[in-house]
Amino acid sequence: MIATAPSQPPADPIDILRTLIRCPSVTPAEGGALAYLDALLSNAGFSTHRVTLTSPDTPDVENLYARFGTRGPNLCFAGHTDVVPPGDAAQWRFPPFEGAIHEGVIYGRGAVDMKGGVAAFIAAGLDFAGAHGHDPDHAELPGSISFLITGDEEGPAINGTEKLLRWLADRDERIDHCVLGEPTSRVELGDMVKIGRRGSLSATLTVLGKQGHVGYPHLAENPIPGMVKLLAALKAEPLDGGNAHFQASNLEIVSVDVGNPAFNVIPAEARARFNIRFNDLWTPETLAAEISRRLSAAAGNELRYALAFEPRSSDSFLTAPGEFVDLVVAAIAQTTGRQPELSTTGGTSDARFIKDFCPVIEFGLVGTSMHAVDEATPVNEVAALTRVFAEVIARYFAARGR
Amino acid sequence: MIATAPSQPPADPIDILRTLIRCPSVTPAEGGALAYLDALLSNAGFSTHRVTLTSPDTPDVENLYARFGTRGPNLCFAGHTDVVPPGDAAQWRFPPFEGAIHEGVIYGRGAVDMKGGVAAFIAAGLDFAGAHGHDPDHAELPGSISFLITGDEEGPAINGTEKLLRWLADRDERIDHCVLGEPTSRVELGDMVKIGRRGSLSATLTVLGKQGHVGYPHLAENPIPGMVKLLAALKAEPLDGGNAHFQASNLEIVSVDVGNPAFNVIPAEARARFNIRFNDLWTPETLAAEISRRLSAAAGNELRYALAFEPRSSDSFLTAPGEFVDLVVAAIAQTTGRQPELSTTGGTSDARFIKDFCPVIEFGLVGTSMHAVDEATPVNEVAALTRVFAEVIARYFAARGR
Ligand SMILES: [Zn+2]
Ligand SMILES: [Zn+2]
Repeated sequence: MIATAPSQPPADPIDILRTLIRCPSVTPAEGGALAYLDALLSNAGFSTHRVTLTSPDTPDVENLYARFGTRGPNLCFAGHTDVVPPGDAAQWRFPPFEGAIHEGVIYGRGAVDMKGGVAAFIAAGLDFAGAHGHDPDHAELPGSISFLITGDEEGPAINGTEKLLRWLADRDERIDHCVLGEPTSRVELGDMVKIGRRGSLSATLTVLGKQGHVGYPHLAENPIPGMVKLLAALKAEPLDGGNAHFQASNLEIVSVDVGNPAFNVIPAEARARFNIRFNDLWTPETLAAEISRRLSAAAGNELRYALAFEPRSSDSFLTAPGEFVDLVVAAIAQTTGRQPELSTTGGTSDARFIKDFCPVIEFGLVGTSMHAVDEATPVNEVAALTRVFAEVIARYFAARGR
Repeated sequence: MIATAPSQPPADPIDILRTLIRCPSVTPAEGGALAYLDALLSNAGFSTHRVTLTSPDTPDVENLYARFGTRGPNLCFAGHTDVVPPGDAAQWRFPPFEGAIHEGVIYGRGAVDMKGGVAAFIAAGLDFAGAHGHDPDHAELPGSISFLITGDEEGPAINGTEKLLRWLADRDERIDHCVLGEPTSRVELGDMVKIGRRGSLSATLTVLGKQGHVGYPHLAENPIPGMVKLLAALKAEPLDGGNAHFQASNLEIVSVDVGNPAFNVIPAEARARFNIRFNDLWTPETLAAEISRRLSAAAGNELRYALAFEPRSSDSFLTAPGEFVDLVVAAIAQTTGRQPELSTTGGTSDARFIKDFCPVIEFGLVGTSMHAVDEATPVNEVAALTRVFAEVIARYFAARGR
């Protein structure tokens, strides 16, 4: 069992959150956020690593890995300090990088997505370290706590979590379980956790024709009716019916573009772009094959078209209900009084990378205001989330200490 | 009968054509072309009228009406001296406004469309005037010849033939039959005349949805599947099967545009634009009603859409086979040795305006090079076209003189 009486006052997640909001860390800028956390964690006995990752044609991005303890198991909290741009700052009720508190609510870009989640797990981690005298070699330390924090989640996500995980693996640094602190709650803190996410696959379809004058259609070949036929074929049958943990996979045609300004010209080609959110009945490869099959069947020998998948598809992930899910759910239920729904809906997250290394669950604040003007979160909710994370830590090591 | 021995050498259509090509009369510029014709015709005894037509939001355009003779019937030749831009002049074998002759071929913008036709009927008209001593009150003059020449055929066609015809009507100036000298021949001079043209109707269809994130399609409303459905409905059934004189009406979707750059965003709306070339089974009004009916039936109560027809639709025209068609066909056959096909295919022309005033037939050069780089026509073909027009004049008045 860990010591229960910290030798100093508990860390203040609100103070951490306000300090983070004041760092203008719009992707790919570090904005001082990781330097701040680095100092905070180093002082508390964590060993920290600032990892700058680079790739051709993308900005260099700073990332942070910090660990308290040397033994396993290693419970990791993952997240990001980068934020999306604030848009027109004049439209905000309070400046987006100030961290103003008004009537119990903290305003600022990233308050919800996800400096609030980062502040909560950092505070919980600092208390865990404090309870062990800030000594990573403390005799009663039941394992390790670590933080995997990227500055490239809202951007191309190339120099972020995916590479940082490989950097860890190259150093034989093992993480055993991971909680990603993205905003997953829907209406009230604790009403939803994400135990999986659908994958995402995007593609561009080009139908080729032959330009000409509308008065002489037999001398031209209009690609648009062919495009209409192919798009109808893509949407004609559901991809699947979903399964126990996932909704049905869904294909959305997000754009169709010809760009012909003239009413008397038959265009030479038409382009459509679509995105598929898919469940674990598919991999990007099997799905690409199915899309190709549908198009080929509809096109027959009559239509000429080209299909190009985007290079960066993302796989689905699922951490099936079991011991780890039960532990996190119990910590949430005990702290918030709510039984969270086990969800796999919504967009992708960095959990798609983490799942290749260890089981991962996402839990965090109510996400309603994320990416919007006046992004904000109640002070009480951040405090409650800190208690949830502390309870996750306690239960994680209690389970392993017995 | 008219006098058969002109008192002077015949007018030279090649010289007239080269002079016209040297006038850079790109719509809406007059370029000196109408001033040249005005002087030429005035000197030959024609009464001429330079008519500058104006309209809000369009350039002023000069037009020319000239008549030889005061009695009826009035046989009118119609055409335009404005031309489309030459594009990159450096790509031309010979300068586009020079009128170079090389190996029996005249090069230049407008050689075919339609300064060649204008030169041919002007030359034929000058010879007719010369045969009557350039005296419009000549006792043996069996009627009148006139020229209706616009500078706004290739442009918006607002300050051109349509208004010029109303200007004539307001002056009680009557034309009885009209030959429009557009390039109608396909492969050899005389192989095709146009006795009609299909009408043209354009519209923009907008399907309305609700923007959202592809991860949460139930919170959004993607307009693209609805657009696919409506476009399929527009093309599902032929509009008609054509009739004795006309091809089937044809609808071409010329553009579909969404303009959404993001793979993860469901767009708010989709726009499509289409054009219909329709035969005389329809008017613009009955056709618009049919399009509205098809869309409404396909949309049911589920799709929200807007349909906007372009303000300037053009009606079809038909000069049914009969005396006037026979006369022109006989003149062509006698001069060229070819029996022209009676066609109603292709784009619209100013005949759509003329048909409201008198029967109109289109006949002219081989159109292959129109609007292209190195637009050109053989010298012999222009000379032969001049003989055809002279033969039309001779037969027209012979028929009426008996
Ligand atoms: Zn996030
Ligand atoms: Zn023309």
